[in-house]
Amino acid sequence: MTPTEKVLARLEQAFPAQQARWLDLLRIPSISAQPAHAADCRAAAEFLRRDLESIGFTASLRETPGHPVVVAHHPGPGADAPHLLFYGHYDVQPAEPLDLWTSPPFAPAVVDGPHGPRVVARGAVDDKGQVAMWLGALRAWVEETGSLPIRATVLIEGEEEVGSVNLEAFLAANRAELAADVAVISDTNMWDIDTPAITASLRGLVYMHVLLKAAARDLHSGMYGGSALNPINALTRALAALHDATGRITLPGFYDGVAEVSAEQAAQWAALGFDEGKYLGDIGLSVPSGEAGRGGLERLWARPTCDINGIWGGYQGPGAKTVIASEAGAKVSFRLVPGQNPEQIVASFKAFMQAHVPADAKLEITGSGSPAFRVSADSKFIDAARAALAEEYGRPAVLIGGGGSIPVVGSFHRMLGLDSLLMGFGLEDDQIHGPNEKFEVRCFRHGTRSHARLLGHLAAK
Amino acid sequence: MTPTEKVLARLEQAFPAQQARWLDLLRIPSISAQPAHAADCRAAAEFLRRDLESIGFTASLRETPGHPVVVAHHPGPGADAPHLLFYGHYDVQPAEPLDLWTSPPFAPAVVDGPHGPRVVARGAVDDKGQVAMWLGALRAWVEETGSLPIRATVLIEGEEEVGSVNLEAFLAANRAELAADVAVISDTNMWDIDTPAITASLRGLVYMHVLLKAAARDLHSGMYGGSALNPINALTRALAALHDATGRITLPGFYDGVAEVSAEQAAQWAALGFDEGKYLGDIGLSVPSGEAGRGGLERLWARPTCDINGIWGGYQGPGAKTVIASEAGAKVSFRLVPGQNPEQIVASFKAFMQAHVPADAKLEITGSGSPAFRVSADSKFIDAARAALAEEYGRPAVLIGGGGSIPVVGSFHRMLGLDSLLMGFGLEDDQIHGPNEKFEVRCFRHGTRSHARLLGHLAAK
Repeated sequence: MTPTEKVLARLEQAFPAQQARWLDLLRIPSISAQPAHAADCRAAAEFLRRDLESIGFTASLRETPGHPVVVAHHPGPGADAPHLLFYGHYDVQPAEPLDLWTSPPFAPAVVDGPHGPRVVARGAVDDKGQVAMWLGALRAWVEETGSLPIRATVLIEGEEEVGSVNLEAFLAANRAELAADVAVISDTNMWDIDTPAITASLRGLVYMHVLLKAAARDLHSGMYGGSALNPINALTRALAALHDATGRITLPGFYDGVAEVSAEQAAQWAALGFDEGKYLGDIGLSVPSGEAGRGGLERLWARPTCDINGIWGGYQGPGAKTVIASEAGAKVSFRLVPGQNPEQIVASFKAFMQAHVPADAKLEITGSGSPAFRVSADSKFIDAARAALAEEYGRPAVLIGGGGSIPVVGSFHRMLGLDSLLMGFGLEDDQIHGPNEKFEVRCFRHGTRSHARLLGHLAAK
Repeated sequence: MTPTEKVLARLEQAFPAQQARWLDLLRIPSISAQPAHAADCRAAAEFLRRDLESIGFTASLRETPGHPVVVAHHPGPGADAPHLLFYGHYDVQPAEPLDLWTSPPFAPAVVDGPHGPRVVARGAVDDKGQVAMWLGALRAWVEETGSLPIRATVLIEGEEEVGSVNLEAFLAANRAELAADVAVISDTNMWDIDTPAITASLRGLVYMHVLLKAAARDLHSGMYGGSALNPINALTRALAALHDATGRITLPGFYDGVAEVSAEQAAQWAALGFDEGKYLGDIGLSVPSGEAGRGGLERLWARPTCDINGIWGGYQGPGAKTVIASEAGAKVSFRLVPGQNPEQIVASFKAFMQAHVPADAKLEITGSGSPAFRVSADSKFIDAARAALAEEYGRPAVLIGGGGSIPVVGSFHRMLGLDSLLMGFGLEDDQIHGPNEKFEVRCFRHGTRSHARLLGHLAAK
């Protein structure tokens, strides 16, 4: 048996213990957006520090102005071995609306699904499940061979779901310590449950918080309607103006730098046989939304978008209340593609909103963004990942685009000069960020094995 | 001393007890819109029944499919005396948002303001305070003279704030018992704290509840943005289309039957010297909203409006959540003027929304309406009220329009053949339906005295 084969055999035997550690991590409600959960975030970080120390890493918590970063190092076989920087995040999205969960979000439930058992919990896949896979692979290598076949640095942050607000400063302050040959990031999806994927491009993100204030107090619509500014009327009007009738975004300068998809890229995507009708049918929809005259994968991977992620104002309870609210708010995000400038879009959005509300409306707008990124597809690390995935699944991995944003890919490139290898095992229907987030145990198992194989391939080179 | 003078003297002496009964009524959280408060609604009705019985009325609670109606009768001096039907409502609006109240909404606080003491509580004025005024006047007449100078029927409902959904059926079933010469309704405002007013016209109301459902579950905007329907994007777009750039409402047929203001009416209103800049300045605004090219009082009293009273969808908490919600909702109301047909506007709104959302959007829309009403200004009851108010305030009452809707005025006309006398003592800044609703004790005292004078004038005729 090769070392990799021995490690794979050990993984099978160690699987119950690995799954138990994953579920323990999921029990910690490490919601980075909610200040009440700050102690839980720290508890998740401590959990990971102890786990890494137990397999021979030197690990520590590093303070930031927000939640701490877990950093750990393993020397592997020595200075001339490839050096991998494993990145993940231990924080999770808020679990609201809680009433739509079939089991409590932080009491992981193992339930049967069409692909066998799955784990339902907030963070099941994003990103605790994905992190638990490579942690399991590292553990199996150490326990089976006494060491790792590569040098490893681990960086697990606690603020990915709130925009990694303190990460760049941390990277800048620790450049030397975080030096490596490539970053390994497991926060993306497979093509489908039988087809592994490496993500080669990612959309960026601009996220804006909007508050529109009108009168100094709530008003009676019978007494003031027709004279006083209604902030919900004004906000809906301004937000509606963000798209034209064809679904194109109307922000001035928004499409500056956006390139058309190359014929070669279009041909590769066409070969994937993406069925948008089925994709939408799985979530109860049938008619594609977004820009008219663009293909399905093009809209998802290569075109920028604008979604209102939340809106509120006035009376939301049962029955009727004839109030004119004093304020209304919304959360608005833009997915960006390569070429778009996030800072310029933040500024354009602020100016657009100001221009589209009445003079009396007092606007408070904050937000920030990160650019899209395209990953180089040619490297020994991508080659090793393709080989590992092909062996594990018996079919080649496909190179796909990602609709979501993983800003750390850009940060690693800018601050550390590192390319990233995006090898993830989520599925489209994992409901990340929604109620009943889940991760298939089958994906978890194959993902762990793929990570173990990747290390073997890099050792051999 | 005339009987009226004796009654007024007694009122001064009885004022502390009258105010105590008013505050006791305010302590009952009779929120008709919220099922959890059904027992409180009944408790308020019982409170009023006992109060009426204690001054010689035969009073009872009458069951409806919703909250009960209080009905009471007093024979007064006999069958040839004028017969007044006093109407009020004991239910109140929900008190949310609770965090904006400076004292608990159902623990009435007597605090000092620029006009002397005021009572802060939900229902302080609307309508418990206004009801407590005429109840106090009736009590003083009975206690001072042993009876009333008029025949009185009292009808106090518990569903005004939820559209009086069961009132018309109740009126139809009790026509004979509720026969009277005129209805006296105290649910409107003064012109200002020194100038009494009789309301001669009222806008109607259509209130609609909208729910727009999209995908079967919440989605990740990175994964689905650009393909899946975003219900907040769609809802804001449809709602924004309800107004054109000049503030005119775009619903087909909406302005059918709306008459222009007559030159005479316009002249009367111009003479009132309404200062819209001050009106808006008092609530922290400066620029009139609503239809372009229309006067301030015209927009408030004679033009229909559309206000979004509430909106919600997606993530409303702190921080960022990149979700595409599965549904979004709104509450939308229209204030109507004479000539508009509420049923036609309900139907037009439903069709409009359906036409303005994407094919995939599943709309659930419910709602209903009541027409606007114009009150006849020529009657011995209006004359008596004008005389009573002029004596009490030392200046004539003005005849004003009302922006709000009091559907019962139309119901009384249709079902009982009764005209209404709308003599109210609220002020614009009473914050009804909002946090910190208040009623000036000075208004309460003058209002009570004005009601007592009104009875004296009717006895003499």
